[in-house]
Amino acid sequence: MSDPMRIRATEKDGIVDVKILMKHDMESGQRKDASGKLIPAWFINMLNVKAQGKDVFNAEFGPGVSKDPFLNFKYKGSKGDKLVVKWIDTKGDKRTDEATVS
Amino acid sequence: MSDPMRIRATEKDGIVDVKILMKHDMESGQRKDASGKLIPAWFINMLNVKAQGKDVFNAEFGPGVSKDPFLNFKYKGSKGDKLVVKWIDTKGDKRTDEATVS
Repeated sequence: MSDPMRIRATEKDGIVDVKILMKHDMESGQRKDASGKLIPAWFINMLNVKAQGKDVFNAEFGPGVSKDPFLNFKYKGSKGDKLVVKWIDTKGDKRTDEATVS
Repeated sequence: MSDPMRIRATEKDGIVDVKILMKHDMESGQRKDASGKLIPAWFINMLNVKAQGKDVFNAEFGPGVSKDPFLNFKYKGSKGDKLVVKWIDTKGDKRTDEATVS
């Protein structure tokens, strides 16, 4: 079971600033464990952000993105907008979290 | 001719913090001009970031993304990494800018 994302979304002058912190180990597949064996790749590769049901942002991460990925972007929106953020990782695990713009 | 992006990339403890500010009007297609005519949609819809020749980040923007889009993310990297950032907009215009991680 994955940990919830931390989502902060605040509006000023019609622009919503969205900050998303995902909790994920983001194993690149190039790291070795204590016994020298490669740790298999396991990372979030797709992120989708919807505001009021409409896509505002999609991201594809490569294996180089760091542990607990952070993302910050802006879109034209309003206080009270409902955000739905989803990610999928390379094992097919999914997580969806929601936030309301303040 | 489009204006250059402002790219800031700084490394700390193996993590590179990348901030990208694109210069683009990002017309959503839903705004009207002074005479009441719709201004056609024209926005950046694809962004690609490579570090040392490898994809670290791809983004797809919807029409709701605000003027002069800003993006901030992190990846596992080093001082001196060469970043290449490209965007394409809905008219097919492209822009590529480079930066070196400090």
